[in-house]
Amino acid sequence: MLIVMHHQATKEQVDQIIAAVELMGLTAEPIPGSLRTAIGVLGNQGYVDDATIRTLPGVRETIHVSKPYKMVSRDFHPVSSVVDVAGVKFGDGHLPVIIAGPCSIETSEQMFAAAAEVKAGGGQMLRGGAFKPRTGPHSFQGLGVEGLKYLQQAGRSQGLPVVTEVMRIEQLDTVCQYADMLQIGARNMQNFDLLKEVGKTRHPVLLKRGMSATIEEFLAAAEYILAEGNPNIVLCERGIRTFEKETRNTLDLSVVPLVREMSHLPIIVDPSHATGKRMLVPVMSKAALVAGAHGVMMEVHPNPAMALCDGAQSLSGADFAALMQEINQLLDFLN
Amino acid sequence: MLIVMHHQATKEQVDQIIAAVELMGLTAEPIPGSLRTAIGVLGNQGYVDDATIRTLPGVRETIHVSKPYKMVSRDFHPVSSVVDVAGVKFGDGHLPVIIAGPCSIETSEQMFAAAAEVKAGGGQMLRGGAFKPRTGPHSFQGLGVEGLKYLQQAGRSQGLPVVTEVMRIEQLDTVCQYADMLQIGARNMQNFDLLKEVGKTRHPVLLKRGMSATIEEFLAAAEYILAEGNPNIVLCERGIRTFEKETRNTLDLSVVPLVREMSHLPIIVDPSHATGKRMLVPVMSKAALVAGAHGVMMEVHPNPAMALCDGAQSLSGADFAALMQEINQLLDFLN
Amino acid sequence: MLIVMHHQATKEQVDQIIAAVELMGLTAEPIPGSLRTAIGVLGNQGYVDDATIRTLPGVRETIHVSKPYKMVSRDFHPVSSVVDVAGVKFGDGHLPVIIAGPCSIETSEQMFAAAAEVKAGGGQMLRGGAFKPRTGPHSFQGLGVEGLKYLQQAGRSQGLPVVTEVMRIEQLDTVCQYADMLQIGARNMQNFDLLKEVGKTRHPVLLKRGMSATIEEFLAAAEYILAEGNPNIVLCERGIRTFEKETRNTLDLSVVPLVREMSHLPIIVDPSHATGKRMLVPVMSKAALVAGAHGVMMEVHPNPAMALCDGAQSLSGADFAALMQEINQLLDFLN
Amino acid sequence: MLIVMHHQATKEQVDQIIAAVELMGLTAEPIPGSLRTAIGVLGNQGYVDDATIRTLPGVRETIHVSKPYKMVSRDFHPVSSVVDVAGVKFGDGHLPVIIAGPCSIETSEQMFAAAAEVKAGGGQMLRGGAFKPRTGPHSFQGLGVEGLKYLQQAGRSQGLPVVTEVMRIEQLDTVCQYADMLQIGARNMQNFDLLKEVGKTRHPVLLKRGMSATIEEFLAAAEYILAEGNPNIVLCERGIRTFEKETRNTLDLSVVPLVREMSHLPIIVDPSHATGKRMLVPVMSKAALVAGAHGVMMEVHPNPAMALCDGAQSLSGADFAALMQEINQLLDFLN
Repeated sequence: MLIVMHHQATKEQVDQIIAAVELMGLTAEPIPGSLRTAIGVLGNQGYVDDATIRTLPGVRETIHVSKPYKMVSRDFHPVSSVVDVAGVKFGDGHLPVIIAGPCSIETSEQMFAAAAEVKAGGGQMLRGGAFKPRTGPHSFQGLGVEGLKYLQQAGRSQGLPVVTEVMRIEQLDTVCQYADMLQIGARNMQNFDLLKEVGKTRHPVLLKRGMSATIEEFLAAAEYILAEGNPNIVLCERGIRTFEKETRNTLDLSVVPLVREMSHLPIIVDPSHATGKRMLVPVMSKAALVAGAHGVMMEVHPNPAMALCDGAQSLSGADFAALMQEINQLLDFLN
Repeated sequence: MLIVMHHQATKEQVDQIIAAVELMGLTAEPIPGSLRTAIGVLGNQGYVDDATIRTLPGVRETIHVSKPYKMVSRDFHPVSSVVDVAGVKFGDGHLPVIIAGPCSIETSEQMFAAAAEVKAGGGQMLRGGAFKPRTGPHSFQGLGVEGLKYLQQAGRSQGLPVVTEVMRIEQLDTVCQYADMLQIGARNMQNFDLLKEVGKTRHPVLLKRGMSATIEEFLAAAEYILAEGNPNIVLCERGIRTFEKETRNTLDLSVVPLVREMSHLPIIVDPSHATGKRMLVPVMSKAALVAGAHGVMMEVHPNPAMALCDGAQSLSGADFAALMQEINQLLDFLN
Repeated sequence: MLIVMHHQATKEQVDQIIAAVELMGLTAEPIPGSLRTAIGVLGNQGYVDDATIRTLPGVRETIHVSKPYKMVSRDFHPVSSVVDVAGVKFGDGHLPVIIAGPCSIETSEQMFAAAAEVKAGGGQMLRGGAFKPRTGPHSFQGLGVEGLKYLQQAGRSQGLPVVTEVMRIEQLDTVCQYADMLQIGARNMQNFDLLKEVGKTRHPVLLKRGMSATIEEFLAAAEYILAEGNPNIVLCERGIRTFEKETRNTLDLSVVPLVREMSHLPIIVDPSHATGKRMLVPVMSKAALVAGAHGVMMEVHPNPAMALCDGAQSLSGADFAALMQEINQLLDFLN
Repeated sequence: MLIVMHHQATKEQVDQIIAAVELMGLTAEPIPGSLRTAIGVLGNQGYVDDATIRTLPGVRETIHVSKPYKMVSRDFHPVSSVVDVAGVKFGDGHLPVIIAGPCSIETSEQMFAAAAEVKAGGGQMLRGGAFKPRTGPHSFQGLGVEGLKYLQQAGRSQGLPVVTEVMRIEQLDTVCQYADMLQIGARNMQNFDLLKEVGKTRHPVLLKRGMSATIEEFLAAAEYILAEGNPNIVLCERGIRTFEKETRNTLDLSVVPLVREMSHLPIIVDPSHATGKRMLVPVMSKAALVAGAHGVMMEVHPNPAMALCDGAQSLSGADFAALMQEINQLLDFLN
């Protein structure tokens, strides 16, 4: 950490800071400048809680050099991680994974049809939501456990591992029973209690970026899971909230190569939720793969126009099959 | 809802839309324009789920006229609500409520000292966190139930009702036992399961705005609580995330008069979390009251420089007493 | 335009609105709903200025259906435009154009070296800034006209058309003399006087998106140029300002397929300014091409470590040559 | 500046950085940490251009301690500045200045009526736009020089100094002739050439914050003017662009006390443009004054419903008179 003093800070103020840093068991190294003094803080093993320091007289600002995460960082774990979900592998050295399926699980028939389409197109995993976070309480909220069963059965019928969102701790055991991979939704990315409980399982986790989360916060959220002992984490970029409203969110594809440099964890992209527009899903899926994503998750629905949720961003089975052909050619080219 | 067709949409496409709207049990009213056709949708009793429509050929966009909330709206409940927290009243016709106390509950002594300072300064409620959401897992996470006891005892010692955050459903019964008011933190504003459970109690709730929540989403979150039967909701503006980093968040004070017009629920302001800077708390507290806030919540700590969390934004007891004098004069003036 | 009335608006208020709309020479079509009345406005040939209407009693909001642009819209000009810059063509049916060169023009030697590297790598146009917008007045501000000469001579030496930024109207004649294409920088995207003057020439224009401009504002800025008679406009996405600071801006690649659908104008991407990190330029360039960009502009400097401006985002000549090999393979694949 | 090295940076890389810093005539002070090395850069007289350094191997990031401005900083000019506009004084020790008038100058009659209303209400300065920046080219663009004459005559008729926007350098002489204060609009805050030319005059300047400008960029823009020798600068907060669309922009009132601490320049607030809603102007004007603003600028129009521009945010003369009564009482209270 670097402590920057005010231009007019006195020597006494500087000395008081140094004493406070040493009280924390750390070393203070003054760096006198021509305009102001800065004080380097040394000896910390990670992120320093600077609340005490920032309040002392003469301090203009504190600047963190360490990050609020460590185990997810490539600095401390240089080798890329591979996450195995019932035989499907996410990470360097493996082909990108295509996850597809409807936003919401609606009926058994719908899920069997979706699974067949995903399999036929060449997808490797099936998705579907049984518990749905919806902005208003008057919208469809999901089928619950009944839906989980449909999901599992549909996945098994085609040999596709399944991923679904877990929204609260009490659902965790149940969801673990039916799902091969747990999804933490964007709204729960900083639901730290849920992250910790998920971290106590060894179930693979798909952690979606919060809609206003910085990369630093995203990685720190993964650290919560890893710190509890669960290393099976796949990150997922799904768009951030900005002033632009023409798309539902702003897909931040640069995060893919950045996260690949900063962390050893795999990262995939969800263009359906990011853009909110079916028309953009194929092209942004391919852009994500070229950007280095370890996979793409997209919404596919047997009958998008009748979907109870987010039909506007769902591909039909035929759309999906056509896109998969293009994706497979692109992956051939990239290899 | 208004459905806007593409410039080149055909008559067949318009007819298909009309049929789809009627299938939903609603009425479609075409509005032919010189450049394009729009179709008004009538007969809905609230927010229309437009996923089906948006996917049909010829549709350029759908525009919602109804909002995803209803019971929190002043349209449907014109009289301002007053929320009573163990005798302290939030709402029109009552003096703004000052809530103060430390960010985190650290020790029994700290809480008794804080309660004495809050009471001496003229505050009406005591706050303190027993369960702390922290960005990284390596920071102090709160004292838990032990902390709740300190908070309750300290509040009772001075006759101050207490408010504290509930972070997960399993904590709800316990927190209800010790706290007079439940706080839903910004990170949980869209934790819909938690909102619903809180809605099943009749405990007063302080609902903080999510850091990237629109006003519409903020009110829709309150609707989740109200829809379950709990009308005792106080809203709290605490800053939104923007590109500006000089303050921790950007305090959006305009939301106060806006929410007062749009909803019957009371709204208070938290300048400590919004700005992250102690220096800004007094001035922004007063600005919030002039903007019409029904209360202000601020961090006060017996020894801010030693606070385990957010000391940089905490006032000392003496700071608080001085500020309360100014606030009381301001409230006298405003009345 | 749709005018949405308050829930409790009276019949008199609705009638007053209808009268006001008719005063504007337009037609008002009331759409009575179960909760509120809306009024459709018909007969307008474009964007309606709603200032008058929004102020009348009973109005809750006005919703624009028409856009503040028309000539740039694909609705009114369905065929994709091709922009010719001294023989280099931007647009559908032509290979994407690679524009490269240093951020700032520093010396004649630097520009000749850069031009040789761009040509050798396979770039089709040369860029370089003679007038530099810099956040603070104490940074290098550019070489001015001397720089323009270096740019033109260097471009000619390799047969590369050149593009450079024009920052003020008085520079326009001079820049037109030396440059084959005029760049309007992000900070000037809404410098409407400059746009109009550029619109009076027939010089090809590269219009960069403002850092907080919506797509609608971006297209409306292009409309300023087109409305004056200059159709030779190439749009350029260069990142938008968001809360994320790990990259300089957030590259919004979804804008590429969106603009291609909404407008007939070609659009290219500048990953150097968007990301601010050299490491991200190659991968995001390729992602941009897959997303459908009609070109990519990137910073290449003979000696990035010695660059007077933005060296951190510049590729060396060798980096550029290696990237161009990958890009050419990708373009072969895409065709 | 602080240079933070990668975790695995070698000693050779650290030595290369030190050499590069010394080549710049500065001193490098290595600060070895337990996890990584940082290097302090000393001896600079201001902002260091770090482009060269950031590109060297082993560097993770550079952190600026100096700011891109100096003369506008209170560090270097501790005494608050007072700006005198034809006898009206902005700054500490003077009553806040109320500037009012229409968005656009429309007719001579309108301006004389507006001036009379502003004077009658107790406003001290008259505003009005002769050159209007409008998002689309098909909107009213202003009366030009004819409008400037109306503005000046109307102001003189009531003894009110006048302020109006200058949009391009060629207008500068003309605008100086008619206006007592030059306004730089939000879209031109980083039109550095215009800032420099305005800096060469000694005319008082009202510099509006850009809609996505950080405080640092805002002060750096003022530095451009000051660096040319013109110290007569009044800053103006007018809302920033965020994801929230219920208000036109998000009024960032915290910037007022922050700028007052960071700079010696006076700062005022424009609640009309910030909120875009007439209903919010009175309450946010008062909040701004309590936050410490040295003035408020608001839109007042003799007939808001007939305004050619932004009528929705304009007060009528009667509204203004009522608000001024409240403001005067508030100012009495604050003193």
